[in-house]
Amino acid sequence: MAPLITLTTDFGWTDGFAGVLQGVILSICPAARVVDLSHGIPPRQLLSGAMVLAAGVPYFPPDSIHVCVVDPGVGSERRAIAIAAGETLFVGPDNGVLSLAVADIKRRRGGTARAYQLENPRYRLPRVSNTFHGRDIFAPAAAHLACGVALEELGAPLAEWITLARRVPSFGEDGTLVGRAVYIDRFGNVITDIADDTLPSAGTYELRIEIGGETLRGLSSAYADVARGELLALIGSLWKLEIAVRDGNAAEQLGIRVGDPVIVKRIQKIG
Amino acid sequence: MAPLITLTTDFGWTDGFAGVLQGVILSICPAARVVDLSHGIPPRQLLSGAMVLAAGVPYFPPDSIHVCVVDPGVGSERRAIAIAAGETLFVGPDNGVLSLAVADIKRRRGGTARAYQLENPRYRLPRVSNTFHGRDIFAPAAAHLACGVALEELGAPLAEWITLARRVPSFGEDGTLVGRAVYIDRFGNVITDIADDTLPSAGTYELRIEIGGETLRGLSSAYADVARGELLALIGSLWKLEIAVRDGNAAEQLGIRVGDPVIVKRIQKIG
Amino acid sequence: MAPLITLTTDFGWTDGFAGVLQGVILSICPAARVVDLSHGIPPRQLLSGAMVLAAGVPYFPPDSIHVCVVDPGVGSERRAIAIAAGETLFVGPDNGVLSLAVADIKRRRGGTARAYQLENPRYRLPRVSNTFHGRDIFAPAAAHLACGVALEELGAPLAEWITLARRVPSFGEDGTLVGRAVYIDRFGNVITDIADDTLPSAGTYELRIEIGGETLRGLSSAYADVARGELLALIGSLWKLEIAVRDGNAAEQLGIRVGDPVIVKRIQKIG
Repeated sequence: MAPLITLTTDFGWTDGFAGVLQGVILSICPAARVVDLSHGIPPRQLLSGAMVLAAGVPYFPPDSIHVCVVDPGVGSERRAIAIAAGETLFVGPDNGVLSLAVADIKRRRGGTARAYQLENPRYRLPRVSNTFHGRDIFAPAAAHLACGVALEELGAPLAEWITLARRVPSFGEDGTLVGRAVYIDRFGNVITDIADDTLPSAGTYELRIEIGGETLRGLSSAYADVARGELLALIGSLWKLEIAVRDGNAAEQLGIRVGDPVIVKRIQKIG
Repeated sequence: MAPLITLTTDFGWTDGFAGVLQGVILSICPAARVVDLSHGIPPRQLLSGAMVLAAGVPYFPPDSIHVCVVDPGVGSERRAIAIAAGETLFVGPDNGVLSLAVADIKRRRGGTARAYQLENPRYRLPRVSNTFHGRDIFAPAAAHLACGVALEELGAPLAEWITLARRVPSFGEDGTLVGRAVYIDRFGNVITDIADDTLPSAGTYELRIEIGGETLRGLSSAYADVARGELLALIGSLWKLEIAVRDGNAAEQLGIRVGDPVIVKRIQKIG
Repeated sequence: MAPLITLTTDFGWTDGFAGVLQGVILSICPAARVVDLSHGIPPRQLLSGAMVLAAGVPYFPPDSIHVCVVDPGVGSERRAIAIAAGETLFVGPDNGVLSLAVADIKRRRGGTARAYQLENPRYRLPRVSNTFHGRDIFAPAAAHLACGVALEELGAPLAEWITLARRVPSFGEDGTLVGRAVYIDRFGNVITDIADDTLPSAGTYELRIEIGGETLRGLSSAYADVARGELLALIGSLWKLEIAVRDGNAAEQLGIRVGDPVIVKRIQKIG
């Protein structure tokens, strides 16, 4: 059975761009199986694309091929690349959009990653546009990889590639941690960059979470722990601190945007 | 060939949540075939999810596995369940979202339904979050069912489960039927809960349909029966009374929302 | 391996209509492979549907079956048809929505097209609604074709069918070409009906492009050729003249809508 190919783009679903990627892939490798991870990344938002990809990858088979195209530099000098991290392959522009997922695999499974430039014309469409490399370069590369072409055949190995910086906030000596809102989902839940293993277990400390002028005390375990319309903090499905409103939209209610600060204070319990 | 798995959720297509369900399913059961029925159910709108699912199920193979996740109570005490209605399987939260489709199968094909609680940790992901049971519980259950695990292995049988009430309006002695708008589709067509077999055939009675301050006389057979921009009533594709505007948006034009009344009067023809 | 079936509709992704097409197809022809090309065509916009289909078809295997349902005349006297252009099949309403893709294949690969009316009840669903022929007529026809039913079995051959007119603008004797905006994509790029091979090569002429009160000089080769927020003209992925704003939305910035004029003047270089 051919490996899975996933697609993550900012193409939307209206213009047929996403469907065309599947047409290209299935023309080259009819046995490929293709899954749309998301085509709703906001136009040119690299960081959103990188985060959605990194959040999704652990839930696909390890030998999957992940294509991610958020590509404001299409047609410029920016390189087209494929990266192998263990048996998982990534294909996309060399602008950092693949880097969070690659770093996450290295962190979880160890090992190193290696990258190759997509430059062999044999593994592109015959006519390459300057505005749609998803169709003309990335989808063909993924399809050829799925049907057995070796990564090394796509082009020269690269010594380095562009990575997005990701802060890992932790508590200072004063017991304060300054994190940030890094993603807001469809439900208005505010996902932060504060990992659950950064937070002290409930026994010794009390937590105070400050966001958008509100202060929350302690973590809830589920949305239903509070009354409808009430604010809560909990560990979300990405194992990060998340701020939500039960049956409501926390980002709207608090006026929070990506990048806004989320401050956690740990206060030692007495006794 | 493995049975089809359909997905109906309020996850949207932007955050990658829907794609992750496919990753989980195909990791567990690589031969599964997955169809997205809808991921556009408005957040937490149980009734919309239940109706879209019930409308779709009859058009899939009878041995399909239908996953429906509209789940405001995720992480709370609400149960996770699988229901068998004949050879058709349903997987989702025990909040009524599966119940209209199950009732519809019983009505169409007879037989009884039986339900099981999803509690066997073997058929969940190793780490279960409190906010994303679609990924951690429902998709894995469906995948295991698709690859041959027996329903009974998922957990204990349940004597009862939550069902949504559905009114079946009919004519009173005064010749008046009071129905409701139950769904508004992308085109602004207003779908009511008035079944076509409730309406008298055209021979004996004249029908008057009152909605949003307008009165319509009789049923049209197709949108094109009236001039562009004009209001009409007809039997829609769910075999219910539907109010539409040719080449327009009836819900907007009439200011109709789900729950608003639709009154049908039958008037005996003279002679 | 069964041929690919692609789906292009104005159904959206919310109501389950698009998913139901897959259910119908896979019920009739379980081995079929289905790709959503787009379900986001604006309601009843024939020309948009015809253009998205025509732009996508060249990137699918030539033996694919393309279903396109933008169908304001559903339930009226308009015919349901299938068209063969070489080995490529099309299924949809006879309202012109298939015609641009068919004409494009004839132009690229030569040959003639032949059409058949979809009228054999054996290849429809048992109960046909007056509002959803995508489900009841078009999807079943495509599924039967995918599983080997001959086109001739679907119904009688047709001597003619409806085609959409497409202007092919060219330079007048005064060195002026008057084209139009024909499509605006998710990124706000304005796609025109001016083919790249209509434009003179850069050597002899200078180009001036007038749109929305702005004048652009010459073609760029990629978005990144200009500064962020600046307007440019380039050859887009459909090999047409396209007006864009780097990292911005040209249609919004210029207030351009489909149908607005785009004027190109070629000015002979001196010397």
